[in-house]
Amino acid sequence: MPDDFERMWADLGPVGRSATSGGYFRQPWTSAEVELRSWFVAQCVARGLRVEADGLGNVVGWWEHPGASGPAVLTGSHLDSVLDGGAYDGPLGVVSALAAVDALRDRGFVPARPIGVSVFAEEEGSRFGLACLGSRLVAGALPWSTARELRDRDGVFLGDALAAEGLDGTPLSLASVGTFVELHVEQGRDLVDRGAAVGVASEIWPHGRYRFDFTGAANHAGTTRMEDRADPMLTYAMTALAANKQARLAGQRATFGRIDVAPNGTNAIPSRVTAWLDARCSTDDGLASLVEAISAQASDRASRDGTALTVTAESVSSSVAFSPGLAASIAADHEGGDWPVIPTQAGHDAGTLSAAGIPTAMLFVRNPTGISHSPAEHASMPDCLVGVSALADTLERLAGS
Amino acid sequence: MPDDFERMWADLGPVGRSATSGGYFRQPWTSAEVELRSWFVAQCVARGLRVEADGLGNVVGWWEHPGASGPAVLTGSHLDSVLDGGAYDGPLGVVSALAAVDALRDRGFVPARPIGVSVFAEEEGSRFGLACLGSRLVAGALPWSTARELRDRDGVFLGDALAAEGLDGTPLSLASVGTFVELHVEQGRDLVDRGAAVGVASEIWPHGRYRFDFTGAANHAGTTRMEDRADPMLTYAMTALAANKQARLAGQRATFGRIDVAPNGTNAIPSRVTAWLDARCSTDDGLASLVEAISAQASDRASRDGTALTVTAESVSSSVAFSPGLAASIAADHEGGDWPVIPTQAGHDAGTLSAAGIPTAMLFVRNPTGISHSPAEHASMPDCLVGVSALADTLERLAGS
Repeated sequence: MPDDFERMWADLGPVGRSATSGGYFRQPWTSAEVELRSWFVAQCVARGLRVEADGLGNVVGWWEHPGASGPAVLTGSHLDSVLDGGAYDGPLGVVSALAAVDALRDRGFVPARPIGVSVFAEEEGSRFGLACLGSRLVAGALPWSTARELRDRDGVFLGDALAAEGLDGTPLSLASVGTFVELHVEQGRDLVDRGAAVGVASEIWPHGRYRFDFTGAANHAGTTRMEDRADPMLTYAMTALAANKQARLAGQRATFGRIDVAPNGTNAIPSRVTAWLDARCSTDDGLASLVEAISAQASDRASRDGTALTVTAESVSSSVAFSPGLAASIAADHEGGDWPVIPTQAGHDAGTLSAAGIPTAMLFVRNPTGISHSPAEHASMPDCLVGVSALADTLERLAGS
Repeated sequence: MPDDFERMWADLGPVGRSATSGGYFRQPWTSAEVELRSWFVAQCVARGLRVEADGLGNVVGWWEHPGASGPAVLTGSHLDSVLDGGAYDGPLGVVSALAAVDALRDRGFVPARPIGVSVFAEEEGSRFGLACLGSRLVAGALPWSTARELRDRDGVFLGDALAAEGLDGTPLSLASVGTFVELHVEQGRDLVDRGAAVGVASEIWPHGRYRFDFTGAANHAGTTRMEDRADPMLTYAMTALAANKQARLAGQRATFGRIDVAPNGTNAIPSRVTAWLDARCSTDDGLASLVEAISAQASDRASRDGTALTVTAESVSSSVAFSPGLAASIAADHEGGDWPVIPTQAGHDAGTLSAAGIPTAMLFVRNPTGISHSPAEHASMPDCLVGVSALADTLERLAGS
């Protein structure tokens, strides 16, 4: 008998967890993530699902009931985490999908269409810098020739990292998939405000990652007069404050959460500061304007500091509006009323597949604090189980006769 | 016959040099620095100097001419570098000291006192964070019980790093030393302005390293509203700008050149930003006021950002006034007039030994750009040879009968 939700959840708890922070380090194609993928395959096998694994680390467990035919219904999420992330972002959708299959079988449900439980690789982009890497390759949104040249922080090429795991970069095909549903922990507090355990996504905000390379002149921190400096740290510092201010003014989001300084010595003025801007807006135009405003202020300050700046868009994802009809039908007519339909500012594999033309929906599970990408990320067990039940209802609706 | 200055200089050129930047990575007790130390011992042996090496990596080559007695004259510098540093800071003083011994022998000089050529370990503090570590331990300014617990960026204890090199932490004794002279590349442009190839130090500004730990709340960079954040990166950014402004206003120096961010992910608001302030002032009181002003502005901003700040002084060195009589006598009566007597804002082993009560002097060699702690650090070969000659003159004066 396969493990139930609580048992599966407990099994995943220790994998890739930092004893110091309690957060997770489940970077793709590292031992923690490989262990999670093996666990997932074992869970599929225990349920009699047919395992389809590709050359990227994407895996689907297929429930192909005799007589099931037509476009498949895919559901799942990811197992990788951000650096020092939470337990729920990703794994909740995977474990819930397996538990939903169990729930449907317990109900005696006979699927008229194949149901697949999916795990996509490197959703967070925490290792190779490009979010939704696995689903982008599967969806044909990113050529392998570009992807294989991506490097991690140690300079390892994606192609080599995969090869070391015996993976050749060939993506699986989604040709048979008619609908994708991703369940995810909420990353804000809309559901708390609305008093609902689950909700349905309306859209994903446009968002992007932009690398700011500030260069200046390395020099001695003690002997160089303040007026003789070309210190890129100052240009960066002003840019980080400007990004915050611009985002506040525009009601949008801008964050500098990652920085790399050379030579990064206490008694040396840096020669280079590289920092990554994460920006999100309610519209594509708003996103472009926000990044432009921040870049303009940064360039202006650079010319005053005697430093130089180049801005490189590493990834930009346009607005994704999920199918309104699908969202409305999923959200409607539940015990206790309709589920709320809410937007999200976070990127997801569901956004990539939706942009690729696959009708897609997302379910969210309430997060009491709204905190995510942090060890403090949380959802209560009762809410998680309501999520499993909601996902099972949704699959029943989509894969029924 | 021992190598001459130019040959020695050429020998050192490739050791620990980055092919990318052209800068040097000669961190203490790593292979590059161990190689330099072996080279130094070999050069001492080639000159018939008696080698005294201690349990820290400090080395002295003694020229004990028959009949020489009384307090010894020590001269030298260091071989370690900052991260991505220049060729001259440190090695110039060591190579010049060896070449000065050769010059004195060529002149037929018979020293009345022992002359030692010294190399002190971890002068830059680039690995264990504490500058002048070797000389501090030798001078008794730092207990071994404290030093052994220092950790490098990989968490390695100093005691363990030394043990791996077969070193037990026992310092050599300076009991026999009556005077110390350190020759160093200038780290500013005073000598350029004064049109002099060499100069003599009057004093070292008070200076210190202070660790600023900013803590906030990790959260999702996309879904967390700007007004719900406690982002320590913003507190840090404002502090870096405040440090620059305060130092300008006071005519002093303040630099944030090193930063460490957790988790340092593009799509996560950081939980912690640690940054190191390097501050230098013309007076001890000025230094205390400067750091206090920066800390106060940082704390004020932290309370507005909902973040927390702790400031830890990792090392503070008070003002060092070199013996004015010694400096004046070294600077006086040279061909073409007296050498300029100038202050420096950089810390040196000479400062540590002077603070420990050993009469100490420093010679500077002109640096055309003033750039230091950078691959662009430079001194011309003719100026270097003037420096060797000046050092030989100084040793002749101090160790003569």
